[in-house]
Amino acid sequence: MQFPSELLESAVNAFSRLPGIGRKTALRLVLHLLKQDESEVRAFSETIARARTDIRFCRNCHNISDADTCTICTSPLRRQEIVCVVENIRDVIAIESTQQYNGTYHILGGVISPLDGVGPEQLHIEDLLQRVRNGRIEELVFALSPTIQGDTTIYYIQKRLSDTELRITTIARGVAFGGELEFADELTLARSLQNRMPVDTYVMR
Amino acid sequence: MQFPSELLESAVNAFSRLPGIGRKTALRLVLHLLKQDESEVRAFSETIARARTDIRFCRNCHNISDADTCTICTSPLRRQEIVCVVENIRDVIAIESTQQYNGTYHILGGVISPLDGVGPEQLHIEDLLQRVRNGRIEELVFALSPTIQGDTTIYYIQKRLSDTELRITTIARGVAFGGELEFADELTLARSLQNRMPVDTYVMR
Repeated sequence: MQFPSELLESAVNAFSRLPGIGRKTALRLVLHLLKQDESEVRAFSETIARARTDIRFCRNCHNISDADTCTICTSPLRRQEIVCVVENIRDVIAIESTQQYNGTYHILGGVISPLDGVGPEQLHIEDLLQRVRNGRIEELVFALSPTIQGDTTIYYIQKRLSDTELRITTIARGVAFGGELEFADELTLARSLQNRMPVDTYVMR
Repeated sequence: MQFPSELLESAVNAFSRLPGIGRKTALRLVLHLLKQDESEVRAFSETIARARTDIRFCRNCHNISDADTCTICTSPLRRQEIVCVVENIRDVIAIESTQQYNGTYHILGGVISPLDGVGPEQLHIEDLLQRVRNGRIEELVFALSPTIQGDTTIYYIQKRLSDTELRITTIARGVAFGGELEFADELTLARSLQNRMPVDTYVMR
């Protein structure tokens, strides 16, 4: 693509470095912004810069936070003794959107994946073990990807905690609600048969 | 979606106001930026703001420009007597990418569309007529959308210029190179039969 202006080209380049945004989409976004009020574009640009400068991470659970400790960790309404272990912040937002979970979180920042050079020391695992040792935590609920890497991570953490009396669970996997059996993949269907459960626990509360 | 931080939420809102970007994509983009160096995000945000403040539009053809007159209008290598009339800047970039056109442009900013409240006075049509009257222009090549609105716009401009001896053409429409006949839509195929041309003019030069 040949651009009639260097400023346009650098703005398009800036946008196209974002994940999933190609040069054509980037051009569309920049041309859209050029049509907006100058004050609005200024506000857009400042919001982005401020997010990067001012957003902090909770020192307890590593969730995104406006303060040193996040609102979930400090809330008196949340059960501090249950900790849901997730890979990233998107998972927290997904679980929060269900409005069915009233415990706290711990964000690992990924899963153990030796092939990608991610070992336990690259993740927030030591912090989690420390949180457990500091007491008060009764249950860890793992909500990691159902992959070898996710399973390895659960196994590793479980091993490290084998001397405690912690209850360690994972979220249920199975055929989705509204999912048709014939379209479910074999692994999911097989696991959901293995992990079948009494009908009286199944009803949604 | 419930966000753990107001700063995150406002950054996501800012991105999701862009066309074609939903809240999930916006969240992905913001989380990506949070992982980048602070200086890089600052540069991104400044590039966007600067593009809006400093990009100007050529007073001759309304193309995006870093100066009052764009590089195409001032280039001695371009034929100033041929003007390609297009809807927007993306069209200019598309035509420039072919490297087959060495005339100049005129960007209308849209096409006449009464249903959308766009009349001739909302477009850069008067400027175009003025350019023609100032002399030196010998041919207008219309490259507008093949819609009723595009055709109306061509018809309107042609009428207004009926007192001149200007040559008025439009780009050829037909089955695309590499396009299979069976997949061409009926209108395109019918038009490309009507506008059939001698084989000796067809060969690409």
